[in-house]
Amino acid sequence: METNQHLRQRGEQKIGEILGQTAADVENSLGELAPALATYVLETIYGQIYQSPTLDSRTRQIVTVASLATLGTAGPQLRTHIGGALKCGVTREELVEIMVQLVPYAGVATAINGVAACRDVFAKLDRHPDA
Amino acid sequence: METNQHLRQRGEQKIGEILGQTAADVENSLGELAPALATYVLETIYGQIYQSPTLDSRTRQIVTVASLATLGTAGPQLRTHIGGALKCGVTREELVEIMVQLVPYAGVATAINGVAACRDVFAKLDRHPDA
Amino acid sequence: METNQHLRQRGEQKIGEILGQTAADVENSLGELAPALATYVLETIYGQIYQSPTLDSRTRQIVTVASLATLGTAGPQLRTHIGGALKCGVTREELVEIMVQLVPYAGVATAINGVAACRDVFAKLDRHPDA
Amino acid sequence: METNQHLRQRGEQKIGEILGQTAADVENSLGELAPALATYVLETIYGQIYQSPTLDSRTRQIVTVASLATLGTAGPQLRTHIGGALKCGVTREELVEIMVQLVPYAGVATAINGVAACRDVFAKLDRHPDA
Amino acid sequence: METNQHLRQRGEQKIGEILGQTAADVENSLGELAPALATYVLETIYGQIYQSPTLDSRTRQIVTVASLATLGTAGPQLRTHIGGALKCGVTREELVEIMVQLVPYAGVATAINGVAACRDVFAKLDRHPDA
Amino acid sequence: METNQHLRQRGEQKIGEILGQTAADVENSLGELAPALATYVLETIYGQIYQSPTLDSRTRQIVTVASLATLGTAGPQLRTHIGGALKCGVTREELVEIMVQLVPYAGVATAINGVAACRDVFAKLDRHPDA
Repeated sequence: METNQHLRQRGEQKIGEILGQTAADVENSLGELAPALATYVLETIYGQIYQSPTLDSRTRQIVTVASLATLGTAGPQLRTHIGGALKCGVTREELVEIMVQLVPYAGVATAINGVAACRDVFAKLDRHPDA
Repeated sequence: METNQHLRQRGEQKIGEILGQTAADVENSLGELAPALATYVLETIYGQIYQSPTLDSRTRQIVTVASLATLGTAGPQLRTHIGGALKCGVTREELVEIMVQLVPYAGVATAINGVAACRDVFAKLDRHPDA
Repeated sequence: METNQHLRQRGEQKIGEILGQTAADVENSLGELAPALATYVLETIYGQIYQSPTLDSRTRQIVTVASLATLGTAGPQLRTHIGGALKCGVTREELVEIMVQLVPYAGVATAINGVAACRDVFAKLDRHPDA
Repeated sequence: METNQHLRQRGEQKIGEILGQTAADVENSLGELAPALATYVLETIYGQIYQSPTLDSRTRQIVTVASLATLGTAGPQLRTHIGGALKCGVTREELVEIMVQLVPYAGVATAINGVAACRDVFAKLDRHPDA
Repeated sequence: METNQHLRQRGEQKIGEILGQTAADVENSLGELAPALATYVLETIYGQIYQSPTLDSRTRQIVTVASLATLGTAGPQLRTHIGGALKCGVTREELVEIMVQLVPYAGVATAINGVAACRDVFAKLDRHPDA
Repeated sequence: METNQHLRQRGEQKIGEILGQTAADVENSLGELAPALATYVLETIYGQIYQSPTLDSRTRQIVTVASLATLGTAGPQLRTHIGGALKCGVTREELVEIMVQLVPYAGVATAINGVAACRDVFAKLDRHPDA
């Protein structure tokens, strides 16, 4: 998969703002076996989709957290994006309430597991506040 | 299932604000066969969960639309809540962009079907602007 | 896929008891394009799995209805098995209450769509009581 | 979320009968971060939905186990409700057979994972028979 | 979302080979409300992901059909990609057998609905062999 | 569930070719609590479905891996069938690319988790090349 330098550069800046990750983080976790996934994350997700001004980053993270929690199969990614939501200004109380709002639609187990993911992320931040 | 008048009254007011539905609408669509579902919708969803001030109605509708679209199995409810999101101040452009934001997490077919649901709701509103 | 006459014969009897279908019904709906699916339904599902005495047919239909409604993607099969549950002695009121019991776990849209499936099946039976 | 004492009291009694949990157990596991989830579990699930006499507790647990196993994303809750099903008189053999009945509808991996959940719960009970 | 002409040109060629669609087809169906989805389909899916030589188009279509059928929520897209699989040399018999292979993993209702999708696509092609 | 010796014998041979498992492996992992699952795996999956010559084993494993990865709830089974795909001649590069091909349809978290499953299986094989 070839690289588009323009998309990659602005994707790197955006993923830094939202998740606090560098391109090297993405490439280290995905790129060894699947460089196409690193390209997809940097160029398509953060270099294209997140660039549209129609939704601000805070709202995009709310949508992403609601979707990943609803899927129920994306535990590591849900934790990453809960952290990203906090960086974008969503409060801890709001994140827990997002999980409560999912109860009627995605079920109480989804909500309980979503709150457990919040608890994990909050506890890790309390132990390593600068991370 | 017994009725709690206090929860039901404030649930009726809330569902009116968000979906433009009355208690009679809910009872007519759900109550004949399953009065417990009408009670659940009026008292638990709108009388309790939606009452918490931690999230405003606009944000609750964004969470709900993202979750229902991600499920992919709740077509009628997704359309209802797209309409509710519009009533809560989410714009048409924002609703379409919410579906675009779902592409990386819930897949492109989910997003395409979500945009099709938006198109249906918008077209119906254009035909019946007062509904 | 080769046929096992012993499994097929007892599967034919069982599917008749539970769904009121004949082998010809199954073969007409599935067998033209996919004879392996007709074999699977007659021999594996009804000839083997349903034969174990550990659960009676009424309980198997309750499990099946709960599972198909939870999936949310199997509308025609859910309707077929609601009909089967009625044949096995599950009452209309119980079927609707099964959908209510799904609310906390599979979500309110799943329950609403499940009640709608019940309504369809009950209405068809009221129009054609001998079917 | 305000508390309804009447629903909460009968919910506490019901969750004790079915899961052997106290209100304190629910509040300790859910209430710190998300008191609304504890209220939902005690008042809506056990105080309202489980109160209807249309289905007995044994049947409700069969429906719940079938639904949670089908979801496949609710491991802790599935184990809790397998334990609850045992308390309501569903036998170990019946619980395993419920998972076998899911094979055709929810797939063999769902059934295998459901049997593994049964094995975990049964083994824990054998080690701590009074729990 | 800005356009990358290089990716778009090779994406247009690839989607023509696989689905027989033109860029105008994609833009007409998606672009009015959601131009970002048309860009995603043309540039990311067909301009990047499908370009890797590691899998041939026939294998990509087998993967895509298996995934969309497993999801169960993407009926229109499943039909489109069944058509694409035929264009890439997957035979009708192979497509039906792919659905049979899904029985143990995604369940018999998924397989039956997948065979029904095949039947629809095959019938349409028989009526309009040049489409 | 009674045993069909003919189906079982050819199922044993097939599961040996594809997964490198013996009947004893299947019975040890499934048979103690749920002998019906061992019968289903040996006789229905490998003794019947995998026997049809319409798809070769390599293609069946591609379909199976795509479906299990899409489900997202079948981690152990996905790892087993990634191993089986390698035995059937699918290369490591092809398996990773299958996960990349899932990105647009099943979402990027599904793909990332699928690549992680590949990494686990490949690393185990590198440590125990004869397993």
